Formats: sequence, C-alpha cells, structure tokens
Amino acid sequence: MTTATIFVCTSCRRSLGEGEESFDQPGRGLVEAIEARLQGDGDRRITVTSVDCLAVCKRPCTIAFSAANKWTYLIGDLDPDSQVDEIVAAARSFAASDNGIVPWRERPASFRKGVIARVPPVKHEELQ
Amino acid sequence: MTTATIFVCTSCRRSLGEGEESFDQPGRGLVEAIEARLQGDGDRRITVTSVDCLAVCKRPCTIAFSAANKWTYLIGDLDPDSQVDEIVAAARSFAASDNGIVPWRERPASFRKGVIARVPPVKHEELQ
Repeated sequence: MTTATIFVCTSCRRSLGEGEESFDQPGRGLVEAIEARLQGDGDRRITVTSVDCLAVCKRPCTIAFSAANKWTYLIGDLDPDSQVDEIVAAARSFAASDNGIVPWRERPASFRKGVIARVPPVKHEELQ
Repeated sequence: MTTATIFVCTSCRRSLGEGEESFDQPGRGLVEAIEARLQGDGDRRITVTSVDCLAVCKRPCTIAFSAANKWTYLIGDLDPDSQVDEIVAAARSFAASDNGIVPWRERPASFRKGVIARVPPVKHEELQ
C-alpha cells in the first residue's frame, strides 16, 4: 500500500493587521480540514500530522510531504480555506509516485509555485 | 555507529556581477571541500553527497543534514570558502544527536542564521 505523511506546521503566524499581536495560525485549521477530508473519503493511505515548527515561518501555511524512500517536499504559501482539495490531491500523487517526484502536470498551481525545498531520501542502507 | 549524510545542492547559482550569465555554482566546490576534510580526518560516519537540486535556489550554498529516524535540516547562505569547518562540526553534532535536533549552543553561527526548514523523521512504522 502506498502511503505518505502530510506534516503541517501549526506555528507559523499569518498577519491579520498592523499590530504584532494581530495574527492567526492557519496551520491549525488546515490540519483539521485535511483530516476531515481524508476521513470523509475513507482514505487511510495518507496521514496528516501537525508539527510544532517546520522552521520556515515566513510562508504560512507550510506543509511537507514525506514517505520512506522518497524525496521530501516542503511547500508553503498555502491557503487553508481554498486549497485543501489541491493539497490532498497532491499528497495522493506523491504517495502514488515511485520516488516522491510528482510529474509537473499532476502538480496543482499551489504546488508548482510554493516549493520551499526538497530533500532526497536517506540512503537505503541507512534504513536497515 | 552514528551516521549522517550532508546533501549539497550543486545547482544554485551565485551572482558574480550584473549579467545573467555571470554566476558560479559554489555547491560544487563545497562538496569537494567537505569530502577532503572528512577524508583528511578519517571520518567515515559522515557522508557528503551532491544533489542536482534542493529547490531552494535563492540561498546558495544550500545543504541538508539527513539521517534515518532524525529530523532533516536544510541550511542555506553558506560560504564554501570559509565555513567548511563549521559545516563539518555541525554535521558531527547532528550525527551524535538522538533525533537530529542539535542543541543551540553547539550550532555555529551559519547554522543558527541559515535554517531554511526542518522536517520530522518519517514515522517509524513506515520504515519497516
């Protein structure tokens, strides 16, 4: 069974006005929205996990797609209100891929524009 | 034996002047410099691996510290001429850590300032 984890950063702050205290943390809602979508679809291949900090900070919401023996992708600038469908679809493409590299044509706009970084899988021999 | 991999992006371009064609790719020299340092020290715990693209692009040189069951750290803005010692020392701290989180006091300045992102380890059950 192909599987993948969506890590969602719940720390990054989105400014809601001028004051320093005027912000929300949209990753929190995004975790719940993705979870609801996966449960609604009965999809147990994909797991969503909140993470205290992905250390990106400046591009909320930030998520990572991760799976054993695949490239990890970090994606930012995501909108929890409008892009849950895109995120779940991209995670499914990621889970179905051989190595984590999703073909360009399968990447939604948010994925094409929002990549922060990617990292190769840890070498196979280190997984033993 | 504690082990870790340093992935070094060899694609990112550093501007050397005004023209679009005036650039170098400092990651290439950084791979060689780290490799020479590790060999000189007889350190076989750390592996350095060049990567065609870590998709960060705007903060050369960019590297990642990676190991099984540890957080992955992406670090940018590194100077291949002056920071090889710091990078190797930080990689050793990373390799020696339980979970990839290096105590703040052990992080050289380049590591403290240059973090681009971090990602938790893939869940243990997915490594089986």
